Order: sequence, then structure tokens, then C-alpha cells
Amino acid sequence: MKKSALQIARAAYQPKLPKALKGSLKIQEGAPTQSVADQDAIAKLFPNTYGMPVLSFIESNEVKNYPAINAGVILSGGQAPGGHNVIAGLFDGLKALNKDSRLYGFLLGPGGLVDHKYIELTQDIIDEYRNTGGFDIIGSGRTKLETEDQFDKGLQIIKELNIKALVIIGGDDSNTNACVLAEYYKKNNTGVQVIGCPKTIDGDLKNEMIETSFGFDTACKVYSEVIGNIQRDCNSAKKYWHFIKLMGRSASHIALECALQTQPNICIISEEVEAKNMSLDDVVTYIAKIVADRAAQGNNFGTVLIPEGLIEFIPAMKRLIAELNDFLAHNSNEFAMIKKSEQRNYIINHLSSENSAIYASLPEGVARQLSLDRDPHGNVQVSLIETEKLLSEMVSKKLAEWKAEGKYNGKFAAQHHFFGYEGRCAAPSNFDADYCYSLGYTAAMLIGEGKTGYMSSVRNTTKPADQWIAGGVPVTMMMNMERRHGEMKPVIQKALVKLDGAPFKHFVAQREQWAKETCYVYPGPIQYFGPTEVCDQPTETLKLEQA
Amino acid sequence: MKKSALQIARAAYQPKLPKALKGSLKIQEGAPTQSVADQDAIAKLFPNTYGMPVLSFIESNEVKNYPAINAGVILSGGQAPGGHNVIAGLFDGLKALNKDSRLYGFLLGPGGLVDHKYIELTQDIIDEYRNTGGFDIIGSGRTKLETEDQFDKGLQIIKELNIKALVIIGGDDSNTNACVLAEYYKKNNTGVQVIGCPKTIDGDLKNEMIETSFGFDTACKVYSEVIGNIQRDCNSAKKYWHFIKLMGRSASHIALECALQTQPNICIISEEVEAKNMSLDDVVTYIAKIVADRAAQGNNFGTVLIPEGLIEFIPAMKRLIAELNDFLAHNSNEFAMIKKSEQRNYIINHLSSENSAIYASLPEGVARQLSLDRDPHGNVQVSLIETEKLLSEMVSKKLAEWKAEGKYNGKFAAQHHFFGYEGRCAAPSNFDADYCYSLGYTAAMLIGEGKTGYMSSVRNTTKPADQWIAGGVPVTMMMNMERRHGEMKPVIQKALVKLDGAPFKHFVAQREQWAKETCYVYPGPIQYFGPTEVCDQPTETLKLEQA
Repeated sequence: MKKSALQIARAAYQPKLPKALKGSLKIQEGAPTQSVADQDAIAKLFPNTYGMPVLSFIESNEVKNYPAINAGVILSGGQAPGGHNVIAGLFDGLKALNKDSRLYGFLLGPGGLVDHKYIELTQDIIDEYRNTGGFDIIGSGRTKLETEDQFDKGLQIIKELNIKALVIIGGDDSNTNACVLAEYYKKNNTGVQVIGCPKTIDGDLKNEMIETSFGFDTACKVYSEVIGNIQRDCNSAKKYWHFIKLMGRSASHIALECALQTQPNICIISEEVEAKNMSLDDVVTYIAKIVADRAAQGNNFGTVLIPEGLIEFIPAMKRLIAELNDFLAHNSNEFAMIKKSEQRNYIINHLSSENSAIYASLPEGVARQLSLDRDPHGNVQVSLIETEKLLSEMVSKKLAEWKAEGKYNGKFAAQHHFFGYEGRCAAPSNFDADYCYSLGYTAAMLIGEGKTGYMSSVRNTTKPADQWIAGGVPVTMMMNMERRHGEMKPVIQKALVKLDGAPFKHFVAQREQWAKETCYVYPGPIQYFGPTEVCDQPTETLKLEQA
Repeated sequence: MKKSALQIARAAYQPKLPKALKGSLKIQEGAPTQSVADQDAIAKLFPNTYGMPVLSFIESNEVKNYPAINAGVILSGGQAPGGHNVIAGLFDGLKALNKDSRLYGFLLGPGGLVDHKYIELTQDIIDEYRNTGGFDIIGSGRTKLETEDQFDKGLQIIKELNIKALVIIGGDDSNTNACVLAEYYKKNNTGVQVIGCPKTIDGDLKNEMIETSFGFDTACKVYSEVIGNIQRDCNSAKKYWHFIKLMGRSASHIALECALQTQPNICIISEEVEAKNMSLDDVVTYIAKIVADRAAQGNNFGTVLIPEGLIEFIPAMKRLIAELNDFLAHNSNEFAMIKKSEQRNYIINHLSSENSAIYASLPEGVARQLSLDRDPHGNVQVSLIETEKLLSEMVSKKLAEWKAEGKYNGKFAAQHHFFGYEGRCAAPSNFDADYCYSLGYTAAMLIGEGKTGYMSSVRNTTKPADQWIAGGVPVTMMMNMERRHGEMKPVIQKALVKLDGAPFKHFVAQREQWAKETCYVYPGPIQYFGPTEVCDQPTETLKLEQA
């Protein structure tokens, strides 16, 4: 594989480790833990892995001898910068325990375990991928490890390869499943340990013990780089409003972090929209008002950040979509007979009056998308809706009304962007390179200590890396019971943006000024070699949360 | 203005200069020059600025005393990284000539000169913008300086501010107009000099004497960064074809440079499509064939780079658009009466059979766009066509046909991207920071030497900066006569991708391998502080052209 100059130079970077991981270590155990909610139900579901203590590694003078360990690793779900460093840290950690340890990588996600597709990850392979982005070392996939049949099939290859522990690198769902697997393997006395690692650019896997999921830092910095560039363009040409949608399925952490880094004129936070029970028209009016106010000052330009999941956080839209799903499911034959050009009216005539009015207010393209593009279960595919275009089109319409009423006198022209794939596989920032390597190394130490049902945890991350605290958190500690597909299931609580949290409050305190004035900040691209104040900073979210 | 950490650190960067500009210098004159074509016509139009020699600055021991000079500067057209450094170089150069020199910036483009909108650019202001992206120091605009009335209005403020020379930073058209202005001011003995600077991310302003236009380097590096990130994602998830459109109105230099940097599976070059007289179906078939071949090897993923101007380079599409423009102009009243749902059929029934067949083959959305979205002159707005979606939709249709015929058995899912605004205002790479600063400094020296009708020129740019050759090229030397809006006009020849040039030939030699195998390169973000092989490289295009 031909490498870029940066890749070659960056390969030599030695990620920083917490002090305790640099030599011999011992475990410090905390008190027994409880799940965040539904303690009885969770305890009952996880009799073998519930209530374990939080673990911290501390330095030790005692040199321990560990046996050689065979371990397996799986990348689960969407890519996030730093996955390769988790694997490199895991590999180096296993080798530090015993130089005869081996690491197997299951291919293309959890499916590789079930289907017995794997490679051995040797030193040569690992070295090829240090400090690089992507999950291409073994690939990732979205198969869910949920059934005992899958667990048993996995166990066959685990036994065949004499694997003692499995490390699953994934988001909230994958870590939940990792814990179910840990419980199952323990219950059946298989001797196989399972350790999770907190991954997701969305930033929604975090809690008291997991300060941040890896990849969030790098992805937000890449998005902020291009947002900053767009803002500089916007402020030079002074003629466009840029509507920028940002990846992050449910939570708005990415949009919020990018706003803190770049100071756009507008940033919509889904969690606030839901809490205030805002309608689509409320959101549109909010944006249009700022556009009009800026136009009154002669500024017919600006930037709007939009979280990907917005539509599903607008209560009225959620109700519309629910009724649409229901209506089309029950009338699919009749609907299929309607002429394409008549479908919109047909729907308007058949929905309840509240939902009918909202549906009628939608631009034609979006309305068509809602009624036509459906997933295999017949449901509306909300993620396909181009929210950035939907909003700019509706804002444009509203401004035209205001112009007719003499309330607005400006020019409105929009450009649209959606950033997601641009950041998920970027080469990890120094922060993510260090954090991921530490998470992987910590996972190896948890394996060495015979632990299972734990998530690798590295805390105190706003301090320099040698002050970071490495350890393990029982996955059950982060769980509660939630309804999924009609059934109550134990799941890791998703961390949405907290409206009483420091990052959101910091944003709220400044957004009126950002809307009125032009306060753009231009972060520029991630730097790997420069001064520490440029290269080694965590996210604004993390700094504010830990302040 | 709140600055990012990178901006603060980067402000201290001292751009590198050619050796001759570091102290006293003298001018070396070449032989008299000729325009590239239409010599008689150009000579007749530019009696006062035609035939001047190429100038090079060389070191000198003789210290000259220059009077204080007031100069004006204008940013014209689309943003390009490094514009602020041209102005900083110009400022420092003028101050080096005489510390009492002054620089005025005309606001929001050439219109600022005509409307007498300007600011004085003081040391404080200049320092604030060194090594930053954007044109926000004085803004840019698209007003064309073409009429004598504009020239005379400009002269009023020039005289009022005692300005001796004007520097116009722009693309081919702006530099053509700069030369017309130089000729006019010289003919009228105004004593006002005009100097041009070669700007455009598109890379289409280049020739024997102008090796590259500024901004091309940085913009291509930003696009290649995100393309590389997408490719890493593509190669990790292995489930999408990414269709990536890249800015660059006519020429495909940006797409070609990005292809050389990132090695995508497919890159379309408009100039080749035109030369081979390819139809839209030919382009679609070419892409679909590669998709199918990769699918046969189990690889249902890949990347396609598409130059923004593609549609207008497909001869058959050009004919269709011409007939559509003509037809709709002559039948606008009748067309306005047709029901929206019937418009497509109406057009199909009225076009010539060749164009009718092409129109009928277009996806509905694109067909609608071609017939509905028209500019104020009634013309189809080709730039609004989402070529990346058009191609992926048609590829998908073609693959479905092949599947039915048993010729293809894969999965095809596409993602779409368009990059343009993401790169035009990035902070300039070291190359662009140095090159722009040198261009501006050179412009000051040309002013000091009393020159007019010249473009600032810095050559030998694949060598280290102190070996660069600074000087001036008569703008008339780059001109030929072309038909514009029905009239023959003197214009700077636009540089399209040369099919016999080294960059394209290098690409052609490798593209079959890139299509079949997965040879992605991941350039990563622009680095400003690292090792020289990472930070100080010119574009692949420049390296191949100068090799």
C-alpha cells in the first residue's frame, strides 16, 4: 500500500500512556456498584457480572508473571478515528504481559466471530496501522451479537484458537451485547472473558466513569476544520447562508462541540427542541428571525449547524411520522393504486387534521420522501431526509412571506453541506491516538487480571496523559431497562446533550451574540507535530464538563 | 475576533522568499514578447502594453532609493487560500521600497474601486491576517471592470488618494481586465500602473510563465484530505460507492490533482470526455463497468471523482442544452400553460429525435431541473445540476439492467459529496503561504520599477523557495482572441487539462490498476509544523509538469 508522507511520518508517533500502565501495576478495587436504574431487573439478568467494583490500576513494585494469553478483537458498528490504536495498545499490552501472547482479529465485525472469519494480528500488521484512521485492519460490521446460537458458534472458534478473552470495540449497543456475552460465557463456565471499549464519534456513550467515547475528538475537529473554512468563505463572499448538517444519529453532541469550536450564527440542538416542544415551524421561524435580523444590518450571510437526528426530536414530526407509518401500513394496497401526482393530496385528505397541516406545509420533495422511501419494515426512512435542504427551503418561504408583509428586506441564498463520512476515518488526533492506545492497553491489563464484563476506562482526560487514570467499569453499572421493539431490554443509557450541562449552558450564554455579530472561529486542520496548545487539546465539551 | 490556537501559532510563520527579493535587486529583461495567438489583433488592441519583455529580478549590490508609493489592491472573484498573504507581501514590499509607502484596499471586489469604497491597510490590520485563509480582510466581489466609465470613476479615487499603482488579484478574466485597464490608464497618460496576480483554486490560469495559480495547492490538499478520509471509511465499511463532485467550473485540474493524491477507483476528466466525444451513456457505462468488475471480485464499494464542469464537456449534452434553451425561449408562453406533470412528455415530443432520446433517459429530477430552473437570461443553469447524483442514479439503473441480463450480481449503494466551499478559504499551506507572499512582494517590486500591464510571476516553484525566480510577465503575452457573448475579445487563454501532459498521462498509466484493486492513499490534513517532506511539498501536478 502506497503511503502518504504524513502517514509515514505519523507512523513513528509513540502514543502517551497513563503513568500506571508504564510498568508493573496492581488493581485498586472500589465499592460494589449498582446499575444507574432498574437495579433489581438488571441484577436478575446479570447474576454473574452485576455489582462488581470499579477498578483502577496503580503503579506497583511487584513484578508479576503472566501466562501467554490468546485474545480476540472485534470492531463493531460505524467507524471512529483511533480504532487501530485501540488494537495496537491491546497488542502491545498483551505482549507486555507475556511476549508469547497472541491476538486474533475477527473480520468485518461481530459476524466474523459467528462465521469463524479471522486473521492473526502479527507485529508486522499492527505496525502498519499505528496512528492511522479507519477500521480497515480487520473491517467492521453491524451484525448484532444477541442470540445464544451466535454465542455458541463464537465459542467454537474461541476454543479452537485457545482464546481466553474477547475485546469488543463498539458503541452503547455493542457494549451492552458484550456484557450479555460476558454473562453467558461466565454462566456456562467457559473461562472466556469479554471486555468492551467505548467507541462512537456521536459522543453519546459517556457517563460518570466513561468521560468520552473515542473518535468524538477527531471527528469533531475534522468537521470544525471544514465548518471554519466555510465560515471564512461565508464572511469573505458575504452572500450565502450555509446550512450544514452534521452526523450523529440521535444526540447533538457533535453539533454542539462544533458550535463551541467555530461559533456559527446558529446551531440547533435537538434535545432543546424536544424539551421546549418546538414544532418544525418554530425551528424555521427561529432561523428565519436571525436571518432577517442580520439582513437588517446588511449581513445577508451566515451559518447554521443542524444535528442529523433533528426531525425525530420534533414532537409534532414524530407524531406525523407515526401516523404516516400506521396509515400507509394499513392502506398500502389502496395507496399503490393512487396516481403519483395525486398521492400528496390523498395523504393530506386522510391524515388527522394536525398531522395533515404539517404534512401540507412540507416542501414537495420531502413530502414525497416521507410517503415513498420506506425501509423493508414499511417505515419512513427519516435518516434519508435532507434536513439541511428542508430547513433552508422552509426558511426561504417564510422570508418571502415576511417580505410581502414588509417585515424583511434582504437577499437569501443558501448552500448545503452534510458532513459525516469525512470525519469517521480521519487519522486520530493526538488525543484520540493516546486515548485509544491507552484504552486498548488497559483492556489487555483487565484481561491479564482475569476480569470480564468490564469496559476499559481511562479517566482524568483533560489532564496530561501521564496523569490519566486507567481501569475498568462494570458494564452493568451503566445499564437501565428500556423498551426496544416492544420488549423491555437491559441497555446502556444513551447520553443525550444535557440542557443543564456546562457545554450547553456555555453555548446558550453566547449564542445571541454569535447570531447577531459575526464571531466565527477558524480552527484549521488537526495538527500532529506543532506546539502542544495546538496539538494536544481535548474537545471543548470535555474541558467544560470536567472544569 | 477570537482566534483558534492554530491561528495564533500560525501568525508567527515568516513566509519564505526567493533569494533575489531578500535585499537589493535589479531587473533582467528578456526579449520582446508576442501573444500566444492572434498577434496582430492583440497588438492593435494594446498598443501601449504589447510586446514588453519578460522580467526577472536578480540580486544586486546597488542600493536604490525609491520614493514613497501609495498603492491600491483589489480581490476579484472567488476566494482562494493565500489572498491575505499576497496583500501582506505587497505591503511588506512597498514598505521595503520606502517606509512611508501606503496601501489602500478596495472593498468587496472591483466594485469598491468604482464606488470609492476602501480602507487603508495599516500594519496592525496586515498583521492580523498573515497566513490566514479567506478574503475577509477587504472582501471580494464579481463586478467586472470593463467599461471606460468604470475606469474613469476609478481614476477619481485613485487621484484623490494619490495612488500610483493598482494590484488586481484575480483569475484569467480579472487579469485580462487588469490589462485592459493598464492599457487605458497608460494611453491616457494617467501615470497609474496596473499589476495582476494569478489567483484561482481551479488551476486553469497557468502557462509557460505562470507555473500555477495560487490557492490550487491548498484547496486540492483540503479536498484530498477529506477524499482520503472517505476512502478509508469506504475501505473499512466496504458497502458504499462514494460519488464525489469537486469544484472547478471548466477545467478538471482539481479532480486530476486529487486523483493523483488519493488514487480513487475512478476519476472522470472532462477534457478527455470531450476529446473522445463520449455521451452521457458512455460515461455511465464506463463507471458501471468498473462497479460490476469490482463486484465480481466481491468488492461492492469504491470512489468516483467527478469534476464540476463535466456536463458541459459532454458534446451530446451540450447540444441538448442548446436546443432546450432555444426551444423554451421560443415557446415560453405555450410551455407555461402545460401542466407540471405533463411538461416532461411535452419536451420529449418536441425536441429533435437525438436530443429527445437523451432527455428521456435522464432521471426525473434532473430533467425537471433542466426545464424549470433557468437563469435570468432564460438559460438552463448547468451548475445547479447535481452531477454526482445524476451519475449514481444512472449507474444504478444500468446495473439493474445488467442484473436482469445476468451480467452483474452485486449490491450497489451510493453516498454523495460535493466539495468546494470547504477548501477555498482554508489557511494557506506552506507552499501557498510562501508563493502568495512572494507574488505580493514581487508585485511591489514591479511597482517600484514603474512597470504596468504585467502579471506578478514566481517560477521554479518545485525547488526550495530561495531558488524561486521572481519577475513579471506581460499580460498580453498570454492572450488570444475568443468569442464571448457573440463578440471577439482579447482574453487570457484558459488552461484546460492537457491530454498529452505529464499529470494526465501519469494518471492514465495507473487508473486501470486503481479501478481494479484498492490503492487508496490517505494524505491527511495539511500540516504546518512538521517535517519538510510533509509540510513543504508542491502539488503532484506541478511536480509532474516541472519534472
